Amino acid sequence: MEKQETQPKEWSQKSWEILSKVRQNSPLIQCITNFVSMDLAANTLLAAGSSPAMLHSIDEIPDFTPQIAALYINVGTLTASSFPAMKSAAEIAVKNGKPWVFDPVAAGCSGFRLRACLDLLLLKPTVVRGNGSEIIALSRASFGDTKGADSVHESMDALEAAKSLALRTGAVVAVTGAVDIVTDGQQVIGARNGVQMLQKITATGCSVTALIAAFVAADPSHAFEATVAALSVFGIAGELGMQDAKGPASLRVNLIDSLYGIDQESIIQHAKISSLS
Amino acid sequence: MEKQETQPKEWSQKSWEILSKVRQNSPLIQCITNFVSMDLAANTLLAAGSSPAMLHSIDEIPDFTPQIAALYINVGTLTASSFPAMKSAAEIAVKNGKPWVFDPVAAGCSGFRLRACLDLLLLKPTVVRGNGSEIIALSRASFGDTKGADSVHESMDALEAAKSLALRTGAVVAVTGAVDIVTDGQQVIGARNGVQMLQKITATGCSVTALIAAFVAADPSHAFEATVAALSVFGIAGELGMQDAKGPASLRVNLIDSLYGIDQESIIQHAKISSLS
Amino acid sequence: MEKQETQPKEWSQKSWEILSKVRQNSPLIQCITNFVSMDLAANTLLAAGSSPAMLHSIDEIPDFTPQIAALYINVGTLTASSFPAMKSAAEIAVKNGKPWVFDPVAAGCSGFRLRACLDLLLLKPTVVRGNGSEIIALSRASFGDTKGADSVHESMDALEAAKSLALRTGAVVAVTGAVDIVTDGQQVIGARNGVQMLQKITATGCSVTALIAAFVAADPSHAFEATVAALSVFGIAGELGMQDAKGPASLRVNLIDSLYGIDQESIIQHAKISSLS
Repeated sequence: MEKQETQPKEWSQKSWEILSKVRQNSPLIQCITNFVSMDLAANTLLAAGSSPAMLHSIDEIPDFTPQIAALYINVGTLTASSFPAMKSAAEIAVKNGKPWVFDPVAAGCSGFRLRACLDLLLLKPTVVRGNGSEIIALSRASFGDTKGADSVHESMDALEAAKSLALRTGAVVAVTGAVDIVTDGQQVIGARNGVQMLQKITATGCSVTALIAAFVAADPSHAFEATVAALSVFGIAGELGMQDAKGPASLRVNLIDSLYGIDQESIIQHAKISSLS
Repeated sequence: MEKQETQPKEWSQKSWEILSKVRQNSPLIQCITNFVSMDLAANTLLAAGSSPAMLHSIDEIPDFTPQIAALYINVGTLTASSFPAMKSAAEIAVKNGKPWVFDPVAAGCSGFRLRACLDLLLLKPTVVRGNGSEIIALSRASFGDTKGADSVHESMDALEAAKSLALRTGAVVAVTGAVDIVTDGQQVIGARNGVQMLQKITATGCSVTALIAAFVAADPSHAFEATVAALSVFGIAGELGMQDAKGPASLRVNLIDSLYGIDQESIIQHAKISSLS
Repeated sequence: MEKQETQPKEWSQKSWEILSKVRQNSPLIQCITNFVSMDLAANTLLAAGSSPAMLHSIDEIPDFTPQIAALYINVGTLTASSFPAMKSAAEIAVKNGKPWVFDPVAAGCSGFRLRACLDLLLLKPTVVRGNGSEIIALSRASFGDTKGADSVHESMDALEAAKSLALRTGAVVAVTGAVDIVTDGQQVIGARNGVQMLQKITATGCSVTALIAAFVAADPSHAFEATVAALSVFGIAGELGMQDAKGPASLRVNLIDSLYGIDQESIIQHAKISSLS
């Protein structure tokens, strides 16, 4: 993970540039994700300009995974039978030099799930994105202090846990919440885009992690910046979508429409990214 | 199941009160449900103010299920491999004094499915919600007289079957249709909210059962009232959503938006709940 | 497959008539499909007037499949454990004289998937619908030249492959793209309805194949015409839906609403169907 020295004022421009690369290159993103989020995650990836492939069979990973631009793994509806494909895909991605992005949904809700997540962390994810409770559970390697997929911690409560997790694993760690924070263990960047109602739509967390995978695929040597950019762009799409939303379902429609249509001016104008370190 | 003596005029007030408890307490609802309805069921639970957790792995039920407020089980996409987790979760819920709500989707469409449903009924569900054909299949323990997940019977045709099923299992039994009926085997309450076009949206039946689980979680000692309230509130959200719907997809968006925003006045004004016994 | 001699000018009328039969008869369509498309495919079938049943357990196929009007199989999220149910359902459908429609999603993305698709082709599908890359992969029985579920070939590039596949399997073969083409190996019909943004919505390909199943169920002795009609009607619904769409998510909502409400005049006015042979 190279250190970033981008100044705050340059982040919005960077965000636009990485989104533009996604739109130009249409990177192929393999998603091994939960059954709740497949629809929204795939539509998020399409709206951003990338090409999602929801392939999760262990039998086709050896043929398929070497062809992808990035891998996205999400344990939301983990089972003992789905886990081996996740491990296999992550191993093949790493062996082929492909970035992979990990969403440890509800990491602390059971011992089984926590152990699976800790196993996956050993496979060198490029980025880990979770809410406060998930990142704390991973960092402490303890379970029981969560509320399913929802967080009982603010993102800032998880700052030290995130830094420690980043240092231990070598991953960029993102914690989403009222402020989205991104750290490599040293520097900490905060993105303040998004609206609270996004939390009332299932799978928005999963979908922004998928978007991180697309952004990292478009600019793999700058995973840190790509992560910040994806969080900010998704949040701005939420803000734009909120403008004439009447509730969470119309916000969901507007979010995807806004992500599809978002332009440079909107990003420059709305991005709220700054250093917290 | 205690007997209710609420008068018709009080039902709308009760409905509002239970919804308010859902919003205040945000009960954690574990959903083991079919793959078609996961998205809409989770979004229904979030819009109502509860917290859905779509965890279905048998390996994490012992850790997770004791922490929940209520369990929702739906056999829509049942397989031999998914069934043991349903049984295990129901057993743990009952052992921990948690209510559980059962949706026997297409109960009569195969012998395999019917037997699975009858097995689950032995595990003392708090509430069973089905359409006319499903409740008749369960009550008669026979299969073959259905059309997949759609009903070939009106809800009122299933009234005696519902009463008998309630008496045999101890569950509150709800039959949805043009009139939604709820019975504990003695009293029968009818709720006449909703619009016909809801049947043109997949998973609305599954979603209202999930909503029942949230309402029962918020007021577990009044499962009967909570069931009536959830059916009426969901139906009213459909009526409000129909106002500027152009078809089933915009109705689906409006339904969730309306459920999120519904207020006391709308419920008092629109609820159509009355005794049928 | 009987040969069609319908003149171009009669196709729009035929399309309306078959849709009307779907609405009148509400055929029961069993769907064994991927987890990404279940929601949109079911809602497409409901909006068109048919009755979807997303049953995929091998244990209930012997009881259930003989009752259906048509079967839809889609390998989008294929695994070794889901494949036997697909084969079993196809065999029972054929044995019971029920049409079945096959969507070979991403057929060429792995050897495992290609072999599964070739196995299914041996079970005599009534219709096969894919994009250019999928049909070419099936026709050549080779893999590796695809981009996940997205096509790297235009539909017209796959014309000879489609003809050859149709002759070899006896199926009607449809290739969707800028022009949708349908062939039985001899005649070739092109439908030019639809809008490009449909490709930015996940599962629209899966959903139009589901719709083909409903149309074939409504007019099983005219599978060729039913396939053309379904492609054209779905495309017209997309065109109507595009009129006030702001992006792919609102287009998705409008598409389903339009399919639900589409009338004879819209079909007559908008259908663009002509012979290419």
